[in-house]
Amino acid sequence: MLTKNQIKLITSLVQKKQRSKHQLFTVEGKKAVDEFLRSSYKLHHLYAVHADFNIESAYFTLISDAELKKISALTTPQEVLAVFEIPKAKHVSTERLILALDAVRDPGNLGTIIRLCDWFGVEHIVCSETTVDCYNPKVVQATMGSLTRVHLSYLNLEDFLRNAKVKKFGAFMDGNTIYETTLPETGILIMGNEGSGISTDIEALIEHRLSIPSYSLHQSTESLNVATATAILLSEFKRRG
Amino acid sequence: MLTKNQIKLITSLVQKKQRSKHQLFTVEGKKAVDEFLRSSYKLHHLYAVHADFNIESAYFTLISDAELKKISALTTPQEVLAVFEIPKAKHVSTERLILALDAVRDPGNLGTIIRLCDWFGVEHIVCSETTVDCYNPKVVQATMGSLTRVHLSYLNLEDFLRNAKVKKFGAFMDGNTIYETTLPETGILIMGNEGSGISTDIEALIEHRLSIPSYSLHQSTESLNVATATAILLSEFKRRG
Repeated sequence: MLTKNQIKLITSLVQKKQRSKHQLFTVEGKKAVDEFLRSSYKLHHLYAVHADFNIESAYFTLISDAELKKISALTTPQEVLAVFEIPKAKHVSTERLILALDAVRDPGNLGTIIRLCDWFGVEHIVCSETTVDCYNPKVVQATMGSLTRVHLSYLNLEDFLRNAKVKKFGAFMDGNTIYETTLPETGILIMGNEGSGISTDIEALIEHRLSIPSYSLHQSTESLNVATATAILLSEFKRRG
Repeated sequence: MLTKNQIKLITSLVQKKQRSKHQLFTVEGKKAVDEFLRSSYKLHHLYAVHADFNIESAYFTLISDAELKKISALTTPQEVLAVFEIPKAKHVSTERLILALDAVRDPGNLGTIIRLCDWFGVEHIVCSETTVDCYNPKVVQATMGSLTRVHLSYLNLEDFLRNAKVKKFGAFMDGNTIYETTLPETGILIMGNEGSGISTDIEALIEHRLSIPSYSLHQSTESLNVATATAILLSEFKRRG
């Protein structure tokens, strides 16, 4: 049985402001919830339509399908919704390759990028404060559990890059071809906004401009989507790093 | 001024069955519509809230914002909606690299894959009949105009592959690492469904099993999304082909 206050709290967590205030976020669906339960994330409370979870009763509420529908952010709710605590920010080590995001706005793109970092063993993503929040329900859904294995820090990206004593690589339309650039094992790879790319202030801090050459048969081809460009660049860094 | 019959026809085109029946599909937004107008696609009719299009009056209707809202498939309609004719299927040449899709279902993934093919100069995608229709409004929107430069054929993929006298490569979780496989300039690269991968019948026709190695620090990492995997594989084919 759900109380009005529980419903109010859970549904408020679709808003970034409320997630920040309560330091809580939601995860939906059995597979994703199971991954978060197995991880270092701390469970706040779990709501499910059946009791197939090995959870202390203080942290568990059995709910009806109708109740799940009330608290779910999904069009088709998936048997379980769990509320987890947002972890404390971790120290960013520059001893490994880091991905930096400058104002990536689309939740689906961020989710895909987190999955890619998981795949390619990039442990840490640093994000400008203008980048979409990784605890946005759409991002959590798109990461397929990879968020439990990749850390994200939201910070002043300009300050961070200015102080980081490693090589900085940025993805541009007019950079040196990635296939012929020497890539190190460590460093920071910076990807920009979906529409406008890397901002001018950040661009000034980048020493190495990279670009994925186009083999297009036509002049008018658009740029690559930020998530697919990240896929190709991370593949190149890892293959040769 | 829009007639009831026009509204009925246009809104019916969100359904694949109706698109097939009328051999028509919709494109929305000035940038995308301009790209289709410049391409070999044949305009059926253009509806816009202003007259900034150089179109014969027989093919143009000036409409109000309220009317645009009635016919648009977008949450935020974008000044223009054009109806184009679905072109006749083109002959598939196996003299260049071809991408084949086995039951890719997500419109966003197909849109991203079409953009990737445009970027990497892959002119032709062959799709199983179970693959999402490329004239689905969500696919058209996601391609950002690349659909005017990449041809798609929907066909019996098993028959097509059986008859194609070129090397067939498939993306699998357990294939040979892409980074160490010799890749030709021609051939067919086959990508599978989001959830289940390449189907058993298609798998039997594939000689070369490719895989993108994971550098993950964890055991439980998911597979890559089909669009990001396609990005990495096409990059490798083009870089070395």
